[in-house]
Amino acid sequence: MSKVDASEKSLTGRKRQRVTIADVARQAGVASMTASRALNRPEMVSAELRVRVLHAADALNYIPDRAAGGLASGTGLVLPVLVPTLHHSVYVQILEGLQERLPDAGYQLMLGSTEYSPAREEQLVEAFLGWRPSAVVLSGLDHTERTSRLLRASGVPVVEIMDLAVEGETGQALDLNIGFSHTRVGEAAATYLARCGYRQIAYAGTLTTLDPRSVRRIQGFQTGLAQLKLPPHLIGRSDQPSSLAVGRELLLSLRRDFPEVDAVFFANDELAAGALFECQRLGIRVPDDLAIMGFSDEEIASHLNPALTTVRIARHEMGRRAAELLLARLGGTLNNPPPIDMGFEIVQRRTTAEPQEMS
Amino acid sequence: MSKVDASEKSLTGRKRQRVTIADVARQAGVASMTASRALNRPEMVSAELRVRVLHAADALNYIPDRAAGGLASGTGLVLPVLVPTLHHSVYVQILEGLQERLPDAGYQLMLGSTEYSPAREEQLVEAFLGWRPSAVVLSGLDHTERTSRLLRASGVPVVEIMDLAVEGETGQALDLNIGFSHTRVGEAAATYLARCGYRQIAYAGTLTTLDPRSVRRIQGFQTGLAQLKLPPHLIGRSDQPSSLAVGRELLLSLRRDFPEVDAVFFANDELAAGALFECQRLGIRVPDDLAIMGFSDEEIASHLNPALTTVRIARHEMGRRAAELLLARLGGTLNNPPPIDMGFEIVQRRTTAEPQEMS
Repeated sequence: MSKVDASEKSLTGRKRQRVTIADVARQAGVASMTASRALNRPEMVSAELRVRVLHAADALNYIPDRAAGGLASGTGLVLPVLVPTLHHSVYVQILEGLQERLPDAGYQLMLGSTEYSPAREEQLVEAFLGWRPSAVVLSGLDHTERTSRLLRASGVPVVEIMDLAVEGETGQALDLNIGFSHTRVGEAAATYLARCGYRQIAYAGTLTTLDPRSVRRIQGFQTGLAQLKLPPHLIGRSDQPSSLAVGRELLLSLRRDFPEVDAVFFANDELAAGALFECQRLGIRVPDDLAIMGFSDEEIASHLNPALTTVRIARHEMGRRAAELLLARLGGTLNNPPPIDMGFEIVQRRTTAEPQEMS
Repeated sequence: MSKVDASEKSLTGRKRQRVTIADVARQAGVASMTASRALNRPEMVSAELRVRVLHAADALNYIPDRAAGGLASGTGLVLPVLVPTLHHSVYVQILEGLQERLPDAGYQLMLGSTEYSPAREEQLVEAFLGWRPSAVVLSGLDHTERTSRLLRASGVPVVEIMDLAVEGETGQALDLNIGFSHTRVGEAAATYLARCGYRQIAYAGTLTTLDPRSVRRIQGFQTGLAQLKLPPHLIGRSDQPSSLAVGRELLLSLRRDFPEVDAVFFANDELAAGALFECQRLGIRVPDDLAIMGFSDEEIASHLNPALTTVRIARHEMGRRAAELLLARLGGTLNNPPPIDMGFEIVQRRTTAEPQEMS
């Protein structure tokens, strides 16, 4: 155990008096307005005066009060980002993309996790709007009526990411939108596995009713199978978040209940990796006995033995471009751009057979 | 492409006039003070009046203005959490632990990533203090002198997590502290591998000079080896963040440059998993040809083939208890508790031989 630091005492038991610009001005021996000018509009004062005020501010540990009105200074602006979960590295990578430029432009990202609940999203949006945010980043296009109404009424720029507003498939975008079509991903995966020669193709996922993007991938997948006149399979679990352990369980229940299945499209690479680990343990040969395909091309996909066939989406790039959209909008150089389709790409690796040309 | 939504237009090109409590009062046909009371101190007004004001607020999409003074209402309070990275699931799980109770208690987590830079941490602390945060959560005990000074001067409660303040090993805690001793983890890993019969034991990691917790684990590891009179090995890479790919590269350089090494303690499970995937590919038998041990017991550790021996730390629990500490401090029921040691535990699995009693 360390000794109690003397300074620790000072942190407890009482409220500090906040240091104000008036205190800084007094310390520097100038008027408050002069001190404020020296800190906020240095081009209006002499270098000597600016140094004197900066020294006074530093000596007093002065922190400009953003909450009370520093907003006009253009720094320290709040930018809430709502994601359904931080558990998937997809969202972490989108955040990394956003983080690349927004903090340096003066925007502090304020993170909220909705846990896939529109009601929780509504609570968070309401709380964040109270902070007069510069803009709001949302995941997906599915919100409560009240969330949409509050955002529209606020006049705050909104970017919806991870989902693409497509007529007839999704809701419309509130404002800016960048993402990809999950319906088309599902269709493409079904078609791809059929091209590899599989005929009993299953989808396996979690939160298959809670996550609207998951729902759209399944719809697209079933459309794809129907177009190819293949039987529809679905092994879903709606009650647990994804994990390697759930991937293993899905594999086991699939082999038990649907032994005829020859290929599985998993809702994400984590589930697919768990299934592959279970296959290794049980001596099930992949892809000879069973083909496995994942979604989102996490780092692990290329390192597994055999390496995982999956669908690549541009996570980091989507975050980076969402930030650019926002900066352009906040800078007044962007009005009503159409939704931006980031697309996706099937990455062929070793857990599926070679695809053939369709006859 | 979707059509441009009519409502989208309203979001662009102009600033909305913020709806104020005066607007709500006018709509409800009451005085501003009455409207404010109905929203903030409902026990002081009739049920009928409260419903009337709530309807007016909802019709106008009224959002209470936290930034301008809603702080006193005790909801929507800002709570910044600074982590070195979101890339490691360790920090994501700590956040999940924090998220369990703080949002429901009215605290909005505001996330900042320092990327292991004390200078970036200082910038973030300064920006966040401008938002009059209720408290600040920091990772680790190593900060710039100015960061420590600003936090002390602010009087804001601070919790430092992930590191334990131990006299002679680390700096002292600024205020509240919950974590574990990284020095002792390093020592325990070296001793454990020696008990398994290994004599050429290496450490392999990344950011080995940037991350102070990594530095302390290495120091403890070398102390452990020295006590056992075993040769010190270190294969470090300071230039890249951890990834499965870097784990594979570390394994390759280790086999090339130090073929005599019989066991490796990796700085985290991700590096250890990458090394294990590379061993699978090269036909190196684990643990017969080479023993591998990880750190932090990520989910993947128990699913690998063979399953990974590692060090378990209580991530989620640490976040949860950090939140409890904060709530107790903010509720005034906690003054100067000593640092809380969460400890750690070596989890024996199949990538190392059976440990023997030390002679």
